[in-house]
Amino acid sequence: MEYRKQVSVFIKSIEISLKTGPDICDITPEIRQLIKESQIKNGNLNATMVGSTGSLTTIEFEPGVVEDLKMAINRIAPPSLEYEHEKAWHDGNGHSHVQAALLGPSITIALRNGRMCLGTWQQVVVINHDNHPRNRPVEITITGA
Amino acid sequence: MEYRKQVSVFIKSIEISLKTGPDICDITPEIRQLIKESQIKNGNLNATMVGSTGSLTTIEFEPGVVEDLKMAINRIAPPSLEYEHEKAWHDGNGHSHVQAALLGPSITIALRNGRMCLGTWQQVVVINHDNHPRNRPVEITITGA
Amino acid sequence: MEYRKQVSVFIKSIEISLKTGPDICDITPEIRQLIKESQIKNGNLNATMVGSTGSLTTIEFEPGVVEDLKMAINRIAPPSLEYEHEKAWHDGNGHSHVQAALLGPSITIALRNGRMCLGTWQQVVVINHDNHPRNRPVEITITGA
Repeated sequence: MEYRKQVSVFIKSIEISLKTGPDICDITPEIRQLIKESQIKNGNLNATMVGSTGSLTTIEFEPGVVEDLKMAINRIAPPSLEYEHEKAWHDGNGHSHVQAALLGPSITIALRNGRMCLGTWQQVVVINHDNHPRNRPVEITITGA
Repeated sequence: MEYRKQVSVFIKSIEISLKTGPDICDITPEIRQLIKESQIKNGNLNATMVGSTGSLTTIEFEPGVVEDLKMAINRIAPPSLEYEHEKAWHDGNGHSHVQAALLGPSITIALRNGRMCLGTWQQVVVINHDNHPRNRPVEITITGA
Repeated sequence: MEYRKQVSVFIKSIEISLKTGPDICDITPEIRQLIKESQIKNGNLNATMVGSTGSLTTIEFEPGVVEDLKMAINRIAPPSLEYEHEKAWHDGNGHSHVQAALLGPSITIALRNGRMCLGTWQQVVVINHDNHPRNRPVEITITGA
């Protein structure tokens, strides 16, 4: 337990290359490196994906769960449906916008003793929902003491 | 990159009028004004919707995506299903509670150089899932330096 | 409105016993106690569930909504589907991983005058999606002034 410690903030941007969506990429190693660099031990870490067809969450990053999550995402907003977005923009990514909105563009994880509070089999992942490959900035903010 | 800067916090409440759900409202202009007022440049911005039938996310706020997201929300928890909540409360909003719980009542977005880290076509939106119009407080918290 | 107040951070872990998923548990009383202990009045409260088959959200915690949310969670990723995770691991919880990833492992709620910004009928809940009971640490981080 920490009590009334003075807080500082550390920020940094990482760039992630993602394939045509749904593509799921583990960014835990990059984040761990930044936590070390920040020298912040206790507080929170926020990761924000820039762009309206990307999202973040945590999973057990093994090929089976990755495949299962992709299929679930495509059940929630199937690429095969008709989307109103398409009627005006014809860019084929109506489903991408809906998927990303439902998952959300950011995640905030507790930080303790210089480590994220994740289970042994739990990683932070970014998801590209777009219908073509994207390079996406992910902004990392570490707030704590 | 900022390193070990001392952090301050800025808080303010805005009130949003929303129509019968699902109604989706862009609050990006109001938030931008508050960021300016806060004079905080780097850190995070959290927006929390008060009430168990509201939620927040980001989308490309154009009429097509707005319509597509409303339809997806009503696929996830259709108003036409039978809800246990109804059997006790008879207020017709069982689906509203489920929709809001799945989307979540808050969002946290990275702040850099006095701007939220959003894509060019990405806005912060509040959603009313309730079965009647609601005026809802949205609490904005900016933490940073 | 608070303006440029110096920020401190308070952290603490609570342990929650959860039944076979989907099980939903109200942790609002425990969190209220920690807010009091922290003496922090304005800012944010983050709760992070450790483990890749757990999640957090807010609901009106009454038996009807609890049941409705459980049913919705099992519609999104039904236990009856075939999961790729199962083919390698045979632990019967493929659906649990997908459900938890879609809901997300954490939540951040605005804090004002020593109280979370929740509606009168709104509680913070943790969800166990796993196919057996779990004791789970939930990490609480209060950042503010």
